[in-house]
Amino acid sequence: MYDVIVLGAGAAGLSAALYAARRSLKTAVLSKQFGGQTATTLAIENYPGIDKIEGPELMNRFKAQAQKYGAEILNDPVVAIARQDKQFSVTGQSGKVYTTRSIILAFGKTPRRLDVPGEADFANKGVAYCATCDAPLFAGKDVAVVGGGNSAVDAALLLSSIAQKVYLIYIKNELTAEQVLIDRLKLATNIELIPGSTVTSIGGANFVESIQVENVATQASRNLVVQGVFVEIGYEVRAEFLDDLVKRNEASEIIIDSLNRTSHPGILAAGDVTSVPYKQTVISAGEGAKAALSAYSYLQGTTPGPETIDHHLTH
Amino acid sequence: MYDVIVLGAGAAGLSAALYAARRSLKTAVLSKQFGGQTATTLAIENYPGIDKIEGPELMNRFKAQAQKYGAEILNDPVVAIARQDKQFSVTGQSGKVYTTRSIILAFGKTPRRLDVPGEADFANKGVAYCATCDAPLFAGKDVAVVGGGNSAVDAALLLSSIAQKVYLIYIKNELTAEQVLIDRLKLATNIELIPGSTVTSIGGANFVESIQVENVATQASRNLVVQGVFVEIGYEVRAEFLDDLVKRNEASEIIIDSLNRTSHPGILAAGDVTSVPYKQTVISAGEGAKAALSAYSYLQGTTPGPETIDHHLTH
Repeated sequence: MYDVIVLGAGAAGLSAALYAARRSLKTAVLSKQFGGQTATTLAIENYPGIDKIEGPELMNRFKAQAQKYGAEILNDPVVAIARQDKQFSVTGQSGKVYTTRSIILAFGKTPRRLDVPGEADFANKGVAYCATCDAPLFAGKDVAVVGGGNSAVDAALLLSSIAQKVYLIYIKNELTAEQVLIDRLKLATNIELIPGSTVTSIGGANFVESIQVENVATQASRNLVVQGVFVEIGYEVRAEFLDDLVKRNEASEIIIDSLNRTSHPGILAAGDVTSVPYKQTVISAGEGAKAALSAYSYLQGTTPGPETIDHHLTH
Repeated sequence: MYDVIVLGAGAAGLSAALYAARRSLKTAVLSKQFGGQTATTLAIENYPGIDKIEGPELMNRFKAQAQKYGAEILNDPVVAIARQDKQFSVTGQSGKVYTTRSIILAFGKTPRRLDVPGEADFANKGVAYCATCDAPLFAGKDVAVVGGGNSAVDAALLLSSIAQKVYLIYIKNELTAEQVLIDRLKLATNIELIPGSTVTSIGGANFVESIQVENVATQASRNLVVQGVFVEIGYEVRAEFLDDLVKRNEASEIIIDSLNRTSHPGILAAGDVTSVPYKQTVISAGEGAKAALSAYSYLQGTTPGPETIDHHLTH
């Protein structure tokens, strides 16, 4: 029986684990991937207290700190949660069932998918969702980036220095990225803009070989020969297993109060999975710590208040 | 004209300044002291990403990072705020008036005072509010600690290894600190517990020489010869200058939502000054960053949403 099970091992989840473990709560982190969005970031310059650090290195530090105080970090993503009285049964993909007195949801967001034929078949075989992670695999190749916002333009710029040719395909007639990025885009000579268009299918044998692109207005279709497709159309909360356990907003994000409590007692949430929109490592770290201290208050049966001030634990 | 003026230079204020400055907002921090509560902490082991660091060193790093992106950090505490249409006039103790389009309140809490004769006269002359900061000044002396919670017991334990004799005076009949601290207290041979009692006055010539202690039940009074008095009875928000500009709770803390917005448009708040009860550096840092991004949304006239995601600024 655990006191706290944290779902997700990004900045929010690992910070929550550190704080829960330091409160001597029996704590496990269950996750599919390690490091969350932070681990996909090359150089972070806005984590207060650390001038510059690579994302994966920062996440390794979070992990070591949480483990030092006894948190268990397990590679077993959750597929089901059931509640029984005042405790929860959490089922991992492995089939193992964990029981716990409280839960912290911190599994972040997942890149939104195109939902077109071929996308699932070619995942990791040319279809990618993280330019920072996968761009180097496409040196000298032709690639497409799908999307018109900051992430997509950012990906196109990064790829323009690595790939031979970059197609940027977006559904609107204008890019919605910030002007500073659009200005930089104009300086790149190997990026071809394809506005007002969508990708309708992805084809190939073992790996991606081409995509079908359709103009939204004219429905004219063309085939582009590419070896890679970077899908950069935003992020979404994917959590079918949550069902209606906690209240969510119209974007499916978990609604929390300023103490990270969800609509269900004993279930806290932190980070990108919540209605807090700012995707920043230090914000997720702070939110994770708050969620852990709120879980502690819940387990003690106390209202979070001045008595929960962690004075002597900070030194 | 500033875009953002931050009141307070602790973890919340400096993190807010870093984030505001990185958004190219013209940003100033006005404060009385530098470093807030974090700077009074000896060794911090629970700031995720940094295994162990002294509080002042961590705050120096926060400051350097904020200044690197252009934030001005000024030693001029605010004494008045006036609003005019969509802007604010902020008056510093120096008499200088600053105008700004938004404000982030992050000036933390102030130690609660005893409010007894002699307390103000002997401030910094034997009366202290931070054991971590001032204990070394009382080597070999006799001192009193006032309070019965974690901070007070923590202070008594620290002082027992430095001072000759420590009196611990508390109003209730039992200590309210956590058991682990009380257990350690029992091992100290030079701490005398004085339960059910209050300090009624502090006396001396140039420095503290004695205190008057009264038993609450019997009203019996005794004089103790001490050279130091550590007041450890909690913290309070002291902000007469705020008047009724923003909504506060019964403890005078500023009420915020999960995006750090106060009841007044254009005024955000973060850290110990708010209704979020957890006094932790990483939580204050995260809250400060959120407040800055919410100020940015306010200044842009946008609702905080996925479009405020800071993707390309993180790498």
